[in-house]
Amino acid sequence: MQVDLISIGNELLTGLVENTNAGYLARRLWTKGIAVREQRVVPDSIPAIVRALKESLDSSEVVICTGGLGPTDDDLTREAVAKLLGRPLVIQQQWLQRLERFFEGRGYPMPPANRKQARVVEGSRLLPNELGTAPGAIVPAGRSWIILLPGPPQEMRPLFETEVLAFFEEQNFRPSWQTKIIHTTGCGESLLEEKVRQVGLPEGVQLSPLAMGGEVVLQLKTHIAGRAPAALLEEAARRLREPLGEYIFGEDGETLASTVAALFTGRGMTLALAESCSGGLLADTITDIPGSSNFFKGSLVAYSSEVKVSLLGVERGLLEKQGAVSDAVARAMARGARRIMGATVGAAITGIAGPGSDSSKKPVGLFYTALSAPRGEECRRTLLPGTRRAIKERASQALLAMLWRMMRPGS
Amino acid sequence: MQVDLISIGNELLTGLVENTNAGYLARRLWTKGIAVREQRVVPDSIPAIVRALKESLDSSEVVICTGGLGPTDDDLTREAVAKLLGRPLVIQQQWLQRLERFFEGRGYPMPPANRKQARVVEGSRLLPNELGTAPGAIVPAGRSWIILLPGPPQEMRPLFETEVLAFFEEQNFRPSWQTKIIHTTGCGESLLEEKVRQVGLPEGVQLSPLAMGGEVVLQLKTHIAGRAPAALLEEAARRLREPLGEYIFGEDGETLASTVAALFTGRGMTLALAESCSGGLLADTITDIPGSSNFFKGSLVAYSSEVKVSLLGVERGLLEKQGAVSDAVARAMARGARRIMGATVGAAITGIAGPGSDSSKKPVGLFYTALSAPRGEECRRTLLPGTRRAIKERASQALLAMLWRMMRPGS
Repeated sequence: MQVDLISIGNELLTGLVENTNAGYLARRLWTKGIAVREQRVVPDSIPAIVRALKESLDSSEVVICTGGLGPTDDDLTREAVAKLLGRPLVIQQQWLQRLERFFEGRGYPMPPANRKQARVVEGSRLLPNELGTAPGAIVPAGRSWIILLPGPPQEMRPLFETEVLAFFEEQNFRPSWQTKIIHTTGCGESLLEEKVRQVGLPEGVQLSPLAMGGEVVLQLKTHIAGRAPAALLEEAARRLREPLGEYIFGEDGETLASTVAALFTGRGMTLALAESCSGGLLADTITDIPGSSNFFKGSLVAYSSEVKVSLLGVERGLLEKQGAVSDAVARAMARGARRIMGATVGAAITGIAGPGSDSSKKPVGLFYTALSAPRGEECRRTLLPGTRRAIKERASQALLAMLWRMMRPGS
Repeated sequence: MQVDLISIGNELLTGLVENTNAGYLARRLWTKGIAVREQRVVPDSIPAIVRALKESLDSSEVVICTGGLGPTDDDLTREAVAKLLGRPLVIQQQWLQRLERFFEGRGYPMPPANRKQARVVEGSRLLPNELGTAPGAIVPAGRSWIILLPGPPQEMRPLFETEVLAFFEEQNFRPSWQTKIIHTTGCGESLLEEKVRQVGLPEGVQLSPLAMGGEVVLQLKTHIAGRAPAALLEEAARRLREPLGEYIFGEDGETLASTVAALFTGRGMTLALAESCSGGLLADTITDIPGSSNFFKGSLVAYSSEVKVSLLGVERGLLEKQGAVSDAVARAMARGARRIMGATVGAAITGIAGPGSDSSKKPVGLFYTALSAPRGEECRRTLLPGTRRAIKERASQALLAMLWRMMRPGS
């Protein structure tokens, strides 16, 4: 089974809206063992949508379209599918009533434009959208299927996760493969590949490594037709764990932040941060994890020198002699964060994210990451080229990696 | 003139890597008055790339491809273009020497695999990549052009901004339109449209409104063939400024954060934050702006109650009686941030980002945003449904909007 993804909307072709739907669906389908053949983005235009659908149905059994289901004149996805299949659009009474109730609940009558959102291509199944006015639909198209989902990601995602995945089960769409992802940090891509070659993988398991930020992701994949794919993947992972153990921080959906969060929570320890050049990005990353309030005390984003002195207790002399971007100041910031927030561990980042340097003339991309913990202190110096944003990201990842190495079992 | 965008890479079809290149190029081309007809994502496969290129060249004068220019066996974009055009790949000696010097500079000989990165389709122009080993290329294809750019965004973007835009100039590719974007906040999309209808726009100016987060973006566009497009857009903007003035915070590339940053910097004022449910996101947004250290003192991400008490000076009784998510605590946090960092203005966010509520049983999505400034205090209560991330984003935007309303000229 193969899927094509078509994202529909002028706002995607003008770049005003980021197309996150295609990436989300691709990732979820891949994890479910379903191949995405191609993605495309087409405008809100009946001929363009019809042409893309035709080309996709030539190759793929399922085409998932997102967008173009709104109430305005620009929203033409339903009309394009009806035209392609030569079938009429009919009002789905139940959804019409639901829309009317929805607007009544907000205290005003349904605008006439929204009526078209209750129209479905004859013979299709409506997918109720709990979070908006545009329902999805599954439209049979000969021996293939066209699946329509609303464009807003917060409406599209739940419909995909419930209705579309249930439909795949119902139709007995078998996954083509099973996958496992191993996340590593601290070892370069080519050295990792060399180590993997030395241990060898079980026959039938493919490996694709991918370097991203400070991480190398190892994708393992095995075809479902083989014997016991889950056991085969587990055997592959087992073989990797020995030579790569010190670099592996997680599997599948885990991230450095979620792994660190689980380690802190599991041990009943707490964390406080002091951030300079990362500007709050690390605190933001950590607090994206539900339940992070169980171990995360907070972060002092100390962007000015006075704040480093008055709140973190960094000595003014140190700042003047060594500069704000230095080993000694990073350590003092980590100690300060730990002390003032009463945390088990304090951690700090200071650096130069650019585009200009500070008065010290140190190079853009230089940063120090430091830890202060019951069993001692440590600090690392890193110099990486990149944009302001990239340096913020790499510095945050570097500090998470230090926290992980300190906290991991056996360390 | 019309452009197609083709993003090449298996890692995009498995969703492991987010495709940010297509959105970036679409946005930049639209701003330059150039239409993008279609975007597509295809795998690292010669037949798939050839087929996509053929279909695109049927409709568009220029096809920009990103990705597939690396040194590995998977990187097949050069080979696919050579196959499509029936022209050989030839070694470009100058780039080969550059690659050899690049690796020498790193202290080891060039791996044999990298040699292919010096191969170009005969008759094409190489675009030197200052930040990586994969050069871009401009390949004439009959009366059309195929432009190849490397996949990593930090390498792709500078090549596009310099070489590709210069090539468009050189070829006398005239823009089809000129645009102006007006950013508003605080007024719903339908009410804005109503107000625009009342003033009317000059003939030849099209308006597309788009609601995104807490913002409504008004895109104005006029065809270049008309008389004095810049003056026409300026006239349209002028007509909008009267009825919408109180909602307009910026134009074109401006954001709420950049507007607020410019207002603080221009007046020599400073800002300190106290963030609870936004978890550092607002500090991160502000510090993405180069030069933000001129006005931004820092943020205390006070995720735990003790930190609110011990560092921000919020009274424990207040927290116990009103709860951390309350008008009184938000105000106390703003005052505390202002005082401890010695800033002109203090600003704070406290709320419930979910997925669960806190012990108070207040609803997920409830947040308070508060300001403490020389001329007084204010606080707003908001309740919005959404995911944890969406609530963090909306709360940060809401506080930026309050800062803007306080600081804007005439307020």
